[in-house]
Amino acid sequence: MPHNIPLAILIIFVSAKVMAEIAERLNQPGIVGEIFAGVIVGPGMLGWLLPDEFLSAMSDLGAMFLLFRVGLEVKSSELIRVGGTALMVATVGVIVPFAMGTAIMMFAGAGTHEAIFVGAALVATSVGITAQVLSAKGLLREISSKVILAAAVIDDVLGLLVLAVVSSVSRGKFDAIQLSITALLAIGFTLFVAKWGSKAMNRVMPRVQETLRVAEARFVIALGLLFGLSVLAVSVGVAAIVGAFLAGMALAETSGPRERDLAQGVSEFLVPFFFIGIGLRIDLSVFAERSTAILAVVILLAALISKFAGCGLGALGLGRAEAFRIGIGMVPRGEVGMIVAQLGLGFGILTRSSYGVVVFMSVATTLLAPPLLRIAYRGVPPSFDGELADHMRIE
Amino acid sequence: MPHNIPLAILIIFVSAKVMAEIAERLNQPGIVGEIFAGVIVGPGMLGWLLPDEFLSAMSDLGAMFLLFRVGLEVKSSELIRVGGTALMVATVGVIVPFAMGTAIMMFAGAGTHEAIFVGAALVATSVGITAQVLSAKGLLREISSKVILAAAVIDDVLGLLVLAVVSSVSRGKFDAIQLSITALLAIGFTLFVAKWGSKAMNRVMPRVQETLRVAEARFVIALGLLFGLSVLAVSVGVAAIVGAFLAGMALAETSGPRERDLAQGVSEFLVPFFFIGIGLRIDLSVFAERSTAILAVVILLAALISKFAGCGLGALGLGRAEAFRIGIGMVPRGEVGMIVAQLGLGFGILTRSSYGVVVFMSVATTLLAPPLLRIAYRGVPPSFDGELADHMRIE
Repeated sequence: MPHNIPLAILIIFVSAKVMAEIAERLNQPGIVGEIFAGVIVGPGMLGWLLPDEFLSAMSDLGAMFLLFRVGLEVKSSELIRVGGTALMVATVGVIVPFAMGTAIMMFAGAGTHEAIFVGAALVATSVGITAQVLSAKGLLREISSKVILAAAVIDDVLGLLVLAVVSSVSRGKFDAIQLSITALLAIGFTLFVAKWGSKAMNRVMPRVQETLRVAEARFVIALGLLFGLSVLAVSVGVAAIVGAFLAGMALAETSGPRERDLAQGVSEFLVPFFFIGIGLRIDLSVFAERSTAILAVVILLAALISKFAGCGLGALGLGRAEAFRIGIGMVPRGEVGMIVAQLGLGFGILTRSSYGVVVFMSVATTLLAPPLLRIAYRGVPPSFDGELADHMRIE
Repeated sequence: MPHNIPLAILIIFVSAKVMAEIAERLNQPGIVGEIFAGVIVGPGMLGWLLPDEFLSAMSDLGAMFLLFRVGLEVKSSELIRVGGTALMVATVGVIVPFAMGTAIMMFAGAGTHEAIFVGAALVATSVGITAQVLSAKGLLREISSKVILAAAVIDDVLGLLVLAVVSSVSRGKFDAIQLSITALLAIGFTLFVAKWGSKAMNRVMPRVQETLRVAEARFVIALGLLFGLSVLAVSVGVAAIVGAFLAGMALAETSGPRERDLAQGVSEFLVPFFFIGIGLRIDLSVFAERSTAILAVVILLAALISKFAGCGLGALGLGRAEAFRIGIGMVPRGEVGMIVAQLGLGFGILTRSSYGVVVFMSVATTLLAPPLLRIAYRGVPPSFDGELADHMRIE
């Protein structure tokens, strides 16, 4: 496919937007249409596109710009304020799915290693989908939205640790010291940037325009920070999108409408690759065999219920309505579940069919979240930030 | 490299912008710095990056968005008005370099096939660099700028034909009918879109916002047209960037500041990949052997003089000053010369050393053009389009 890049991009972009338009007309969020577009043009149906290196790179970039844009709308001080609740939400929301996934797989007759790997794949939330829906509806200033975002960052760190433990245990080389170092690095990096990032940028950004001669200097600095923190995030073991989110948050107070517009342009172009990329990976052949099909549905239900219940329970202190919203918002697994599944397949721990089950669960939770979020937030008015409203809309 | 996308992008983006800043401080155009950044981080010096599929895809995208943005600033009616002059400029500007390149190579002892292939590599202008410089300096409304843009489009079609003839002759399968069909298709497509594109868009664009529900619908349509015409351009044999330029031009009259800002954001992110990509491909080892080094310098001088003289001659009707500017503006060969060289290497017609000579010529003409353009346009005041000025600046 890299031989005809314009054609591949044309297919992706047009199919994503046609399906988004159809989804909107059916009163569904546009991104549900974009993910479906991936299912349709992908190997499962039309076979026009296969997931390849170029596509997955573009999809990664799309996810990074999506989270960067969301970060731009969130002040770190507000996120740190809900830190306690978010920690509860993330922790209970990791334990319950892991336990439930492992238990079901063992009940279904899988070996211990395979069972805990599927459990681990049920752990991590993919915050991109929820963030996109909340941002598009102007709901990022809701307390529940902030808890979801903060919990998703913590969830990513916890997911990293669960995965590290599970992989090392299942390959027979558990090293507690190494693991503690990993944990400390990931936590330290995240806390440090969340706490000091925007303070540093508040000093740097106002001087950029007068100091640098390069064109669009403020946007250049913003992109430099985006990729710099993404690289650092990857090097301490957390996802690149966590770095991208932290970069956006560091710039939330100092970036003007110009940088937001320019970042929005990149998002508009790249984010569809992220959503299409999710749909592209689904493999409907899991439904060929009856027992696998049943397992897929059971695991999907477990993924939905366990995350909803776990996170909702952790957020019960905020009242039922908020807990409900937070529970729903943490449901999508998106690309994160698939990465774990791929790892398990690579280690030879997951069978082809349990790999397919996890991928199906990842895509299905992602597709179900947006309509559920619409219901959860029904009647909540959007709270755009005055003049910035137009610039801040993502979807 | 695709294994750590954020790192590759960080290296590219930061090195490009640091070098652009240095270039600006030395009173040189920023893009000269960006091309040099490619030379520095590339295999010739630091070796941090190698040209690979992902990078070359990003570089192609950068070139497409660059020409799309330039097209947005050019009305097709104005370009068609200078069509006669542009045809002269392009034609003489193709014949002289081809003849001169072929003659020098034969004089240097190369075989006929190799000589005409190097001649063909000297033919095609890479308009991106000139367009970027003129756009950044607010000079796109100058008559010379319009002639350069129109001539570059014609030059691309002529270059396609020269290459088709040369490849078929040198591989011993010349087919006049096939060639005429290619020519007619390419010319027909270009003329048709240039003439009717903006008329069609003038009808479509005003209705987009009220008809479609998808977010940023006007930008979505613009990107759809960009990739649609790029795909069509490739399928009739001309470069994707010609399609991208025609798409921009079709939207020049109807696109508002919002779409321009969003497109600008994508350009700011992607265009450095195009410039870095050019620098990345240089191979300084041609200077290891004395005879090759001399040939490289001679071919470079021939490329400069022949294009300058040929295009200047074609534009002499506009007066000396304009002819001088047009001659300089057509000098850079950029990626186009390299593509021809790659093809010749693939056919086994070019030796490794004449390949290196052509690549050196391509990069060097591209590096020399921006400072020469500064001189050629010294004293010409920028003519930004009133309120749109800020939105229209590219560099």
